[in-house]
Amino acid sequence: MYFSNMINVCLLGFGSVNFHLATAFVASKKVMINCIYNRSEIELPETFKNIPFTTKLKEIPESQVYIIGITDDAIQSFSNAIPFKNKLVVHTSGGVSISKLNSKNRKGVFYPLQTFSNSSELDFSKIPICVEAENEEDTALLIKLGSTISENVQKINSNKRETLHLAAVLVNNFTNHLFYIASEITKENNLDFSLLQPLIKETVQKLKTLNPIEAQTGPALRNDNQTIEKHLHLLRDEQQRELYKQLTESIQKTHGKKL
Amino acid sequence: MYFSNMINVCLLGFGSVNFHLATAFVASKKVMINCIYNRSEIELPETFKNIPFTTKLKEIPESQVYIIGITDDAIQSFSNAIPFKNKLVVHTSGGVSISKLNSKNRKGVFYPLQTFSNSSELDFSKIPICVEAENEEDTALLIKLGSTISENVQKINSNKRETLHLAAVLVNNFTNHLFYIASEITKENNLDFSLLQPLIKETVQKLKTLNPIEAQTGPALRNDNQTIEKHLHLLRDEQQRELYKQLTESIQKTHGKKL
Repeated sequence: MYFSNMINVCLLGFGSVNFHLATAFVASKKVMINCIYNRSEIELPETFKNIPFTTKLKEIPESQVYIIGITDDAIQSFSNAIPFKNKLVVHTSGGVSISKLNSKNRKGVFYPLQTFSNSSELDFSKIPICVEAENEEDTALLIKLGSTISENVQKINSNKRETLHLAAVLVNNFTNHLFYIASEITKENNLDFSLLQPLIKETVQKLKTLNPIEAQTGPALRNDNQTIEKHLHLLRDEQQRELYKQLTESIQKTHGKKL
Repeated sequence: MYFSNMINVCLLGFGSVNFHLATAFVASKKVMINCIYNRSEIELPETFKNIPFTTKLKEIPESQVYIIGITDDAIQSFSNAIPFKNKLVVHTSGGVSISKLNSKNRKGVFYPLQTFSNSSELDFSKIPICVEAENEEDTALLIKLGSTISENVQKINSNKRETLHLAAVLVNNFTNHLFYIASEITKENNLDFSLLQPLIKETVQKLKTLNPIEAQTGPALRNDNQTIEKHLHLLRDEQQRELYKQLTESIQKTHGKKL
């Protein structure tokens, strides 16, 4: 059964980004996934049982968009190994330039600005999708494809996307690591990490009404050296102490300059 | 008019913690604020116009609980300067030991685990309030007082509270500073910071179903050195580069050890 108004896509690699994209595409009913390729055999979840699956590059059928969802370092060599040509092949990475894709196909990027863990359910509708392509027709198709799952599709070039990816690393990866250190500290002291949840929620909530620079509070901002010394004493891991010092200095430098 | 079932409190200092406590106490209708003391004259907001205000320590009336809400470094000397004795005097700081309070009064702590900016409205009901006192009767009164505004009142001693405060600095102060750096990076590149909001939201949302160690993603975790190098190149501030390196190393050390 073929619906002419549906967009045909083929997913190349089935890590967490393409898993979540597949889930959203299937739910949208406006996208037909006509193939999932993965270099090794995998057990497809029940929702995707009807989608043709292959581990052979040569068996990949014709599609309107081919979406590479593999680790950043492997994108270039994988795109070189693709046997077909003159098709629209996009990757989904924030940190990889469009130019890493092989020129035998039309290049593009389809980057959902989000953190993907397999076990976490996602509502795609609010996730910004940053698209880039080499010509207007392909850009329009990627915008159309993005719009099937998200209300926020943005045309963003590789340079800007790389900057956005850096910012994403700061607000997600690094923030999550601070949450990890805090969770270890509470665990070691038989305190429940959930005590910190309202504070974490408010930290994010504040961004709606205040700039981060206005929302800053705490011992670093107040130059409260007694508390800072006490905290450094409480941290037993040398690396964590160094991190605490660097973040404190960076806050002090920022607010010394700006206030 | 006096209601015997109401708790009488006096607020000593009127910075953002006591401002927010006053707002919550007034709303609760179970607490009577019978005095606000501040060392300098201030214009009280309309809601507090009926509360007696003074800048003279000697004019502070008798209350069941005196709540010091001033900067950490000043708590000890202020508590020494209080003219009355044998009353329950508490401070509201996460990082200051109960022992810093002068022994002429009964000591206590009433620490709302939250970040307070004057311009941000707060729902106190979910904010953990950590209380500590020297005897059971005072502890019971502080628990009762906390319960008038919060569903989550915890008896926590000074050592544990200081650890909790350190964890709070990590998840709020440091996280907010990372948000600041990200907001600067997006601004410099004419990108809208709000593009990062769904990612920030998901970073926090994930904590409900995953431990922070399971939720970790990104170039540091993947040892994606190409992206890490690119990000270091994009950061033009030396201190921010150092911060990026330290956080990346700390993630790698954590996951090298644990995975």
